[in-house]
Amino acid sequence: MLKIPVRLQVPARALEIQIGEGILEEALLSFFSPRKGKKIIIADAGIVDLFAKDFTNRVEADLLTIEGGEKAKSYETVNKLMNALFERKAEKDTTLIAMGGGTITDVVGFVASIYMRGVPLVLIPTTLLCAVDAAIGGKTAIDTSNGKNLIGTIYQPKAIIIDSSLFRSLPSKEWMNGMAEILKLGLVYDVSLWEMALQDSKDPNLIYKAMQGKVEIIEKDLEDLSIRRILNFGHTIGHALETVANYQISHGEAVMIGCLVESYLSLRLGYLPQSDFDTIYNVYRQFPIHLPEGYTRQRFIEAISHDKKRSEGGVRFVLLRQIGQAMAFIGEYCRKVSLNEMEGALSWMESNFPPL
Amino acid sequence: MLKIPVRLQVPARALEIQIGEGILEEALLSFFSPRKGKKIIIADAGIVDLFAKDFTNRVEADLLTIEGGEKAKSYETVNKLMNALFERKAEKDTTLIAMGGGTITDVVGFVASIYMRGVPLVLIPTTLLCAVDAAIGGKTAIDTSNGKNLIGTIYQPKAIIIDSSLFRSLPSKEWMNGMAEILKLGLVYDVSLWEMALQDSKDPNLIYKAMQGKVEIIEKDLEDLSIRRILNFGHTIGHALETVANYQISHGEAVMIGCLVESYLSLRLGYLPQSDFDTIYNVYRQFPIHLPEGYTRQRFIEAISHDKKRSEGGVRFVLLRQIGQAMAFIGEYCRKVSLNEMEGALSWMESNFPPL
Repeated sequence: MLKIPVRLQVPARALEIQIGEGILEEALLSFFSPRKGKKIIIADAGIVDLFAKDFTNRVEADLLTIEGGEKAKSYETVNKLMNALFERKAEKDTTLIAMGGGTITDVVGFVASIYMRGVPLVLIPTTLLCAVDAAIGGKTAIDTSNGKNLIGTIYQPKAIIIDSSLFRSLPSKEWMNGMAEILKLGLVYDVSLWEMALQDSKDPNLIYKAMQGKVEIIEKDLEDLSIRRILNFGHTIGHALETVANYQISHGEAVMIGCLVESYLSLRLGYLPQSDFDTIYNVYRQFPIHLPEGYTRQRFIEAISHDKKRSEGGVRFVLLRQIGQAMAFIGEYCRKVSLNEMEGALSWMESNFPPL
Repeated sequence: MLKIPVRLQVPARALEIQIGEGILEEALLSFFSPRKGKKIIIADAGIVDLFAKDFTNRVEADLLTIEGGEKAKSYETVNKLMNALFERKAEKDTTLIAMGGGTITDVVGFVASIYMRGVPLVLIPTTLLCAVDAAIGGKTAIDTSNGKNLIGTIYQPKAIIIDSSLFRSLPSKEWMNGMAEILKLGLVYDVSLWEMALQDSKDPNLIYKAMQGKVEIIEKDLEDLSIRRILNFGHTIGHALETVANYQISHGEAVMIGCLVESYLSLRLGYLPQSDFDTIYNVYRQFPIHLPEGYTRQRFIEAISHDKKRSEGGVRFVLLRQIGQAMAFIGEYCRKVSLNEMEGALSWMESNFPPL
């Protein structure tokens, strides 16, 4: 038997994140000044009149719109976008510009990753959550009837443009969605981010600091195989709550409950000191968080048993060692927790955050 | 405006190509011995009884079949396979094993690249063409009504297993498909491969040498941005012929005509010496190659004007400097050729290879 060993090394690639107030047009035009090829903006229909229409004309792009929300992440949207790209004769050097929240950047990112084996992609988040979460890291996805995010790729944009003026009109629920991810990142990775968020959650530098933290983690683990998993903190409980609520709970609320209950789990399993837990508890209890209508222990257990991170004998959790640092379990950054071990934390959750 | 520069570097990855006579089972079992997770073989229905059925049982895998041929590369196949994977509860660590020719490895590779953002993939080519061409390089694709290979990814398998005993029952047309790619690789990259192919085209070491050459090129340009383009030699003319023939010409025959006519173009444009061209001509004229039924100059020009490599004022061609070396045009490895410049080569083609 002959063997040919092959070493596959994709060259390093640069991505620039630009952050500022009112920078959108300038940043996009400067991105395109050395580039050729067509530009196609794919925007959430709900923000077209607000942000996209005039802007599209000024930067000389084509405009496609799709309905936002979780239902955007479907085979149907992918088909619709593919056909629109073929109609417009999009080429290998045509740049797709996704403008909207995380559902838009997820599905447009997926389309960009598979159209002609990948075309240039620029992301313009219009929600704080998308800016600090979905936009960074290259995860793209659509949902199927078998579950969320089950089809997708890891595909990096060429640029991310964060214009904080776009977030100013966000409803408070949207702001809470973003804060939930910023606080989470502070808890698992950066105590100074956590403290900054508590002092002045409207400080524009907060977005910058949060993105910088997430970038550091992503750079270390582009393919989501090790340290990047700490970003799942709060999301094992959070996703199960979303399932139980049939997504009638906001992501921010679900993740906040998740972070708090997983902190409690970290305390009970002997990793997190009591004083750190008390600090965390006092922060989260100020937010209006409640278990969703229709919550029952049984439905919750069922939902969490279908988690992607499940394995025999338990569900994998990221746990905290202290505020600003997740536990590293032999490089794995998560630990199997049995349903038995979970019981106490669930009882605590039920008595502290009963449904309204 | 604040900027966060991001450096994205995917770690190098190893892929092992194993080549030999009758090695299939041993090679696959040794690949899996240190791995966990389910195995699902996805095989061309046409080769199931011949190669896949008993083998599947012996290696304790699940078996899915799809109809081979170009029609396999469709949205429908992707949907069908996705549903089958969900039904079988394929996980992130489930390995997909594609067994068949290039159409099977293309579509199964695509599915592996997007299921749960990528699952392990093993390729087992059952044709010489697939072994020396489609299997190496990570290009995956499906076709759309707008054209071939317009949707896809670049996604590398974990292993490629080449059991040359599988090729023994191939019809001579299939053997010619493989030879067309081996000769092409010799022309653009490796004169010793070219000479070896002429001496004994059944020498098993020929496959090894061809794959080694292709691996060297791929390693230098994983993303198909520079030198890897030399592998398109013969394919600009070849693809246009396939279009004109509505794919009723074999890929090998189309590529052989393509290599010869593009060599003639290289001669006429002053890059390739006459003596080298004469050698090339004498080799290809021994094969039974003819322009396809229905060929007209006009239909051909129309087809070639739709080539993916088209640009204003001409079509991009890889051209030869000598046998074993493609011309590097300032790192681009292709040169725009106008329809005017093409005329002479097309007349030459029409008079030398009239339709039967």
